[in-house]
This record gives sequence, structure tokens and C-alpha cells, in this order.
Amino acid sequence: MPYDPTKMADWQISEEAEKNMPTPDDWRDRLGLEKDEVIPVGRLCRLNFMKIMERLKDKPDGKYIEVTAITPTPLGEGKSTTSLGLMEGLGKRGVNVGGCLRQPSGGPTMNIKGTAAGGGNALLIPMTEFSMGLTGDINNIMNAHNLAMVALTARMQHERNYTDEQLERLTKMRRLDIDPTRVEMGWIIDFCAQALRNIVIGLGGRYDGYTMQSRFGIAVSSEIMAILSIVRDLADMRERMANITVAFDKRGNPVTTGDLEVAGAMTAFMVESINPTLCSTAEYQPCMVHAGPFANIAVGQSSIIGDRVGLKLFDYHVTESGFAADIGFEKFWNVKCRYSGLKPHVSVLTTTIRALKMHGGGPKVVAGLPLPEEYTKENVELVEKGIPNMLHMINVIRKSGMNPVVCINAFHTDTKDEIEAVRKAAEAAGARCALSEHWLKGGEGALELADAVIDACNEQSEFKFLYPLEMKLRDRVEMIAKEVYGADGVAWTPEAEAKAKMLESDPKYQDFATMMVKTHLSLSHDPSLKGVPKGWVLPIRDVLIYSGAKFLCPMAGTISLMPGTSSNPAFRRIDVDVKTGKVMGLF
Amino acid sequence: MPYDPTKMADWQISEEAEKNMPTPDDWRDRLGLEKDEVIPVGRLCRLNFMKIMERLKDKPDGKYIEVTAITPTPLGEGKSTTSLGLMEGLGKRGVNVGGCLRQPSGGPTMNIKGTAAGGGNALLIPMTEFSMGLTGDINNIMNAHNLAMVALTARMQHERNYTDEQLERLTKMRRLDIDPTRVEMGWIIDFCAQALRNIVIGLGGRYDGYTMQSRFGIAVSSEIMAILSIVRDLADMRERMANITVAFDKRGNPVTTGDLEVAGAMTAFMVESINPTLCSTAEYQPCMVHAGPFANIAVGQSSIIGDRVGLKLFDYHVTESGFAADIGFEKFWNVKCRYSGLKPHVSVLTTTIRALKMHGGGPKVVAGLPLPEEYTKENVELVEKGIPNMLHMINVIRKSGMNPVVCINAFHTDTKDEIEAVRKAAEAAGARCALSEHWLKGGEGALELADAVIDACNEQSEFKFLYPLEMKLRDRVEMIAKEVYGADGVAWTPEAEAKAKMLESDPKYQDFATMMVKTHLSLSHDPSLKGVPKGWVLPIRDVLIYSGAKFLCPMAGTISLMPGTSSNPAFRRIDVDVKTGKVMGLF
Repeated sequence: MPYDPTKMADWQISEEAEKNMPTPDDWRDRLGLEKDEVIPVGRLCRLNFMKIMERLKDKPDGKYIEVTAITPTPLGEGKSTTSLGLMEGLGKRGVNVGGCLRQPSGGPTMNIKGTAAGGGNALLIPMTEFSMGLTGDINNIMNAHNLAMVALTARMQHERNYTDEQLERLTKMRRLDIDPTRVEMGWIIDFCAQALRNIVIGLGGRYDGYTMQSRFGIAVSSEIMAILSIVRDLADMRERMANITVAFDKRGNPVTTGDLEVAGAMTAFMVESINPTLCSTAEYQPCMVHAGPFANIAVGQSSIIGDRVGLKLFDYHVTESGFAADIGFEKFWNVKCRYSGLKPHVSVLTTTIRALKMHGGGPKVVAGLPLPEEYTKENVELVEKGIPNMLHMINVIRKSGMNPVVCINAFHTDTKDEIEAVRKAAEAAGARCALSEHWLKGGEGALELADAVIDACNEQSEFKFLYPLEMKLRDRVEMIAKEVYGADGVAWTPEAEAKAKMLESDPKYQDFATMMVKTHLSLSHDPSLKGVPKGWVLPIRDVLIYSGAKFLCPMAGTISLMPGTSSNPAFRRIDVDVKTGKVMGLF
Repeated sequence: MPYDPTKMADWQISEEAEKNMPTPDDWRDRLGLEKDEVIPVGRLCRLNFMKIMERLKDKPDGKYIEVTAITPTPLGEGKSTTSLGLMEGLGKRGVNVGGCLRQPSGGPTMNIKGTAAGGGNALLIPMTEFSMGLTGDINNIMNAHNLAMVALTARMQHERNYTDEQLERLTKMRRLDIDPTRVEMGWIIDFCAQALRNIVIGLGGRYDGYTMQSRFGIAVSSEIMAILSIVRDLADMRERMANITVAFDKRGNPVTTGDLEVAGAMTAFMVESINPTLCSTAEYQPCMVHAGPFANIAVGQSSIIGDRVGLKLFDYHVTESGFAADIGFEKFWNVKCRYSGLKPHVSVLTTTIRALKMHGGGPKVVAGLPLPEEYTKENVELVEKGIPNMLHMINVIRKSGMNPVVCINAFHTDTKDEIEAVRKAAEAAGARCALSEHWLKGGEGALELADAVIDACNEQSEFKFLYPLEMKLRDRVEMIAKEVYGADGVAWTPEAEAKAKMLESDPKYQDFATMMVKTHLSLSHDPSLKGVPKGWVLPIRDVLIYSGAKFLCPMAGTISLMPGTSSNPAFRRIDVDVKTGKVMGLF
């Protein structure tokens, strides 16, 4: 320790680190947990959060640290890596630290970006379980979600085939009279399955379902994942599970999972998943994993439950919000913290020389292809030209009342002058700045970051939301577009505007959170616009209704809820050692 | 103990019995297992079969008992119940007994038939975990299977969009040139989702997949479930996983999961699932659960791995083959035992007065509707008229060289004269016969059955296959149709016959097993024909190629790989107690 990540792949580092990984019994002793608060699942365990919260309800919370990033390249800029490095660095300082990250989606794991276990010495272990479904939460979400679609489509078939009298006699059901052109919900699968993005279902005869257009989204974009991120407890989950809008009826009224009488069975699939799973950093700090990624098309936050447990168990609790500060942090700030009532102490802004060079005008970065030379050789000018993206994100975080710590997530190709340029700019903007070499050196490489974070946690800050809940939907979107994304305004399609007006005029949507769906690859809706785009308006084409989560989700630009599998996907390189059962090739 | 099943629902009995259920540590002590042979998963555990088999390889096998049934009503006639009752009865006799059952599918659990945990006092516990996904095997199969479809459809899109030169440069892939009209594989989901039975996928533009017809089957019909049922070890699984035929290319050559370079990643999803999960009977006999149900559309056998482990751990090992003896037992006999090399000692033929009355001409039994009076009041004549179905099944089992034990699975509405009629007929046919009241009384009610089984196990029998592997596909199907189903012959559609001829002439399919796809609701292909249908031919409309499992699957009649959700599905009655997290309403 540390391992040499220039010679070992991540899965190999994980395999080595796993040899001394704490067992569920070890964790119980170390964290002072009671026997029935720890539920072993193979080498991992779930934490029974209701029991832990009940026992520790009077204990004061620890420090609450959020990790976000500047606008990333398609490769990601190491937010998970920085979160894990920070836990390891705080661990080296002797602090009682832990965290909560998000479970990776099978989509990126099997496609280009790989899993989200961090990297090098700042790694979440065991990497195989983490990457290949963990303790089953996404599978449980998939079953709960698709059961609602089974209930919906079977109901539409039976209502078409039977008279009111037959429906009543056979099933004691009233006719829901669902409008097949206004089905809000699709199916889900946890892969990048572009072939299922737009489909026609129910072909055949009278007993082959109901013929209509439909779609699959990626599992982590499911409303049930959103619900898992924000619920308070099982009672809250059960209630939200019945309120999901699956469609509208022919008179324009919402049809919910409750109307389909499927919410209880859906919740039954989620009973285990409400408990966070406990994993470990490569240096053996405790790190929970709960809820899912993709802050572009989902809420993309580690769960409120995970953070509440972490703040009781740890003096410093690190959590992660997906992608860049314009989307991940904005949702952490205005959605997650509003629901949880928790106030973060500091936000860490992950920055890389690579991403700054891209924002400064460097050539296109394409996942799966070699990096152009500009990114591997010194070019201070490109870095300096890219710095406005970082300054914009510092400014976004400041609007929440916190002063961010900029973390330069070091790559071995970064030069001293490139790093100095970033540090100078961050400090000139009044932010703390720390170079961190956790990828190469683990916690020893993250001491500067750990110290900056401890320092920032002791600073007084006044956390405040961007907008009050009383603000109308379109006004909120305009405020987010202007204040967070830097747009000049918002352009609604006629359909989206009509839907927005309907939602604004219906009292039941007034206290819903606004959960933006927008690319993470630009401050704007257009992934090709880097740096800080100027002189543009944000186009909104639809508003998804997540009435279980209580989210209204404006869809910006052409972003889809189902990514595509590339021509050179990661699954080609994943295999199993059949003698030991070990999974190889994860990254 | 026993509980009163006339007053308690199955999930309530399970909840009570769970209070004294052995923990993973208890099982380790009781079964003499080593620490690393038991992998805890919540209240359950997986058994590391490779370690156990290596340690016990020289220990002689126990007695091998198979449980099958006569042609059932749509409600099922209690094969799982009888298997569990038999374990409990043998347990009461002080015998070291255990078993291996199949994991239920979410399809029936959420639809009409309910879960397959047995019933009353002959129950598999804990019922919630068992019914709601167990330790994740079906989810893992779903992910492995659908990843192959993602690989296939993404490949078809990329091959359409790129020239050979681009494919080579971008991805180092050769063109597979898949024929979109000859895609063999569909997607899977573990519900009765008739709306996904026939679909069109890949609508949209250039990056939205490949436009073609496609389909979803129920997860348990997946070839990967078939592979799980029959594999020897992880190396065997990895090899089979690469041999699955996903489609044919435009020159007529098979395209496999190996060609798509996805078999390693698929296997990675299955690493945990190769280990059977250990559950318990309501009287605390050890019972593994491994592989899946549906012997009509799948192999429907508990796994060979489970049986091999059980025969080492127990003196009497009970296993289950799906549905009636014409399909479940036929596959146990000619497919599973051929692959395993294991020889069963006895087969138990589960029989109910209800099913015999149906075969004798009783009114239609419809799941979800009240039973007609004929089934709840004494009617010896109907029973006697139905007995030929039982005699046919006795005769089928005899052809394997075993003399079956007929188990009359008692219902509280059965009368003494009805039972005597069955006993007389079974004994006249030379079979042992036992009345068993395990539903009402648990093991105490199954002592007669346990004694008959012990007795039969000590009898010499000479187990032999119905046909040699050298026999050609169409001859085998004809032999099964005549000798097992009682048909006059087989009628192939021109397409099916052409496919059969192609398969017969290609040397690589010569040692493949024949895995019939046929309704379980009749000896014939027509579910409405009860008793022992005479004067009919078996229509074959297609032959599925499962080249990973090494199965050829002739499809008889109109049976579909995707059942439908009814108008009064079970999910309506399933819910969660939000205070305790307990799932209610499973049956």
C-alpha cells in the first residue's frame, strides 16, 4: 500500500485490497452497531437504518460534505475517485469518516465509461459486487417498476376485451379508461439498450396485450430510483409508490399505481433495498452505497437515508451528487436538501486539467478512443482558457451559501505550471484549493484536500435554496437556466408549455420539486458547447410527472432516458476466472 | 405445530415458523459444513458447491427421490407441497433428509397461481425471500440474457451504420452480417407480460437500434436458466455461455454469444448464482432452491448442482420436476439424468381427487374463480372416470425402470370412498400408494408416504432412458409423442420440418438433448383435452435451438414462452406492513 495504479488495473487493486477487507462482523465492532443492525449479504452487509436511527436519534450529526465537479469530459473527471480519496485522506488524519456513494448502472459498466468505483488507490471495494448489481437494489427497482407496466398493459387489454359488467363480475374492477396516447410511464432495463428506446408493443391478437407505442428507459432513470433517493422510511415509500402517474384517462385525470392496485406488491420488491449496503474504501473507511447515478436524466444523488445514517455514525460524512455542479449539485441543493432538511457544511468541486483543457478549446474527447496529445502534454494556455467553467461552478455553489473547496484531481500527465494556473484562479476567486493525488497515492495523496475540507467545515456558512417552493414551475426553470446554467432564457415547445400551464394550475403539483433533465456535458443543453456558453436559451420539450417522488422533470434539448451502447463496449473485455470465480476486466 | 391452515394463510404460517428458523450458522453446525462453504445472504445462505463437492467427493451418495404429478388443473396439484411434506415426513422418521426445489417465477407469483412454496404445514420458509427473488438468481439470469440482446441489437445497428473499414478501425470487429429475419433469441422479463410477447423494436433514427420484430419471453424460459439447471461447474457454464445461438447470418451460419464477445460478461452476472441457496421446510429440514420452474416451456428442473450437493449432504434427497410426468418427469428422465449421470431410486406421483375429477369429466377449473361443486362434494364416479390419467402416468414412469409411489395429496373435502377408489386403482396397477395429509398436519401427516418411499428406495430398479442419443430428432419426438403422451403420431409444419432436417444433417446438433415445449394441462398439445386423449397427432410448429444448453426444443401446439396476466392478478392482494417490513398476501 499504496498499490501502483500505473501497473495494476482497478479490478486487480480491488482483488488485493479485498484480502484485508473488514467482514460484516468487523464493521459491527468498529462502528459500534448492534447485532440486528447489520444484515450480512455475502462479503457485504446491509445496515438496518430504521433500527440505527432509532437508537442514535439523539446523537448530534457529523459534518456533511458534498462532492461535485466542473463540466466533465465524456470520460468523467473522478468525482467518485475524489469522494473516496477524501475519505481515505480524512482517515489518514485519524478522523472518524465514512460516506455514501451511488450504485453504478449496468449501462456504463457494460458500455464505455466503466463502473463508478473510483480508481487507482481511491477505490471502492469489493469492485465485483459493487459493479455487478451489489445487493440487488437496481434489480428490485426493475421488478417493481416493470410490474407497474405489466399491471397497466394487462388492464388496458382486459378493459378493451370486457364490458363494464364483465369487468365488475370477473374482477370487481371499475373501468379506468386509460388514454393510450397519454401513457406517461415506460419500461426499464439496466443497460444502454437503444433498440428498446422506441418500440411498439402488444402486437398479435386479443390476448396479446394492447397495441401501442412504448419505450424502455435505463433503470436508474426510474421514478422508483428517485423515490429510493429521497424517502424517509418504508411508510413514506409505500405512500409514494401508490402515487406514481402511469397514464392519464380519457377525461384527462391521472391514473396511478394506486389505481392499478399494484403499489403494495411494488413495495414488497423494495423492502430489502431501503437499507443501504456497506462497502469499503481500498484503505478500509466505511462507505455505504445507496440509490443511483445519472444526475442528467435522474436525480442522481446518493440517498437521504444513507446520508442520515452516515451523519449519525461518522464525524465526517462524504456524499456525492452526480456529474457537474450545474445539475448534480443543483439537485443536491434544491431538491435533496429540501426534502432531507439537512444542511451541508462544504462542497468539494472536482476539477481536472483534462476537462479544463477541453473547455479551453481542446480537441473533442471521445470515450473509447485515445486521448489527443493536447491532453497529455503541457499546455497552460488551454488550461487558462478553460478556467471560466470552473469559476462558473464556484459561483453556482456560492449561491447556496457555501464556499467550495476546489480539488484538482491529479493525473500523472499534469504539469506543475498547469496546476499552478488552476490554483491561482481558484484562490483569486476566494475558494480554497487543494491538489490531490489520491489515485496515485491513496489517503497519503489526499492530505491537502482533507485538511482543506476540515478547515472549511469549521467555517460559518448559511445554506439557502435558490428558489422558494411557492415559485411557479416556469419561473423556477427560468431561474435555474439563468442563475445556474448561464442561459439568457427558456424556450418551451407549445406541448411543453401547455403541460407546464396545466401543472401550474393544478394545486396538487404546487409543492413538487423541479428535477431538471439536461446533458451533463455542457452548461447548456447542447453537449458540444464547452466552457461557459453565452447567448443561448434553454429549450424545454416536455415535462415528466413523477408524482410518487413529487418531482416535475422538465426535459431540456434532445436528451434521452435511454443511452446507447457504443461500437466498442466494455463487455468485450469482462470475463470470469472459472477456477476462482473472480470477475476480471472491470474498470 | 402443526399450524391450522384452515385459519392461517401460507404467509402467516411462514411468519410463525420463521421465528425458529435455523440461521446460516445453525445450518453450518447441523450439516457439518466448513466456514467458507456457507455464504450468508440475509436470513438465508448460499452453499459453495465447488468446495463442498471437493471435500465430500469420496462420500457415497444418498437415496435420490424425484417428485412428479398427474396432469394438473390450472391450480396445480401440490407437487412442491408433496416434496416438502415428504421431507417433513422423512424428518419425523429420524432420517437425514433434505431436498432441492425450484425458485418460483415472478409471473405466477404476481398473477394467479401464487408462489410455489408448497402450502399449509408443508411449506418452504422464509416465504417472502423465496417468493420475491430469493438471492437474486432470476435477476442475474435476466441481466445476463438481456445483455446478449443488447450486444446483438447494438451490433446490428453499428454494422448497418458503418462500412467494413470503419468497423475494423473503430472497433476491430468483423462484420457478422446477421439476418434480421433469423434472430433466434428474444429478451426476457420475469412477469406474465403479454404486451411484450410480440413487439417491434428499434424505431427512430440511425442511432436508435435496428428496426425489426422481437419478443420478450418469461425469464424462467431463458436458455440461461436451462444452463443453470444442467451445468457441472463454472468452467462448464462459461463454455456453454459462449455457445448460445442468438441468430443466423445471411449465409445461414449460427451467430453466437461468443461471436458477440459477450459471454464473459454474461458469466460474470452468474458467478454467485451457480451456488444453490439454502432454505428450510416449516419443520426445519434443509431444502435448497436452485434453477427454475415451468417444465412446459423450459426444462423446469431443480439443478443438477443442487442434487449433487444434496446427495452428498443427505441420506435421502428429494428433488422436483415440473408439472406432470409427461413433461416434467420425461425431462428429468431423458435430459437431466442423462447430463448428470445420476440414477434416481424412486419417483413419487402426486395425485389429487380434484384433478382426477377434472379428468373424469368434471366442469372446467378456472384459476381465480370459485371451484364448481363437483370438486367439493363427494363424487366417486367422476374420480373413477379420471383414474386413467393416473394409470397413464404410472406407466410412463415405469418405462424408466422405476416403480412409482402414488401420493394422494389430501384435501379436506376428499372423502374416504374417493380416496379408496384411487388407492385400489394404484395398487391394482402394482404401484405403492400413500395418502398424505402434509398440508393439514405437516410431517405427522406424511408418515405413510415417508414409509412407502423408504420402502421403495430399498427395492432394486434398473433406470434406463427412453431413447438413445443416436436417435434422430424427428424419431425421438415421435417416440416421446407415442410412448409418453399417447399420440398416434407427429405432424410437422413445413417450416418446422425443414428446420428439423437441417438440424439432423448438421453433426454439431447430434448429441443435443430433446427438450419438448408443450402444455402441462393435457397429455396432448391442447390444454382442453383432459384424461387420456385418444386418436390425435402432436403438431410441431418450430424447433428452438439452445446450443449453449445443448437442447433442441420442439414447440408443440400454440404454447407461448410468455404467459399473460389475468384480469384478477395476485399483485392486487400483496402488500407490506410498513412498521415491520413484512410482506403480506403471498400464497
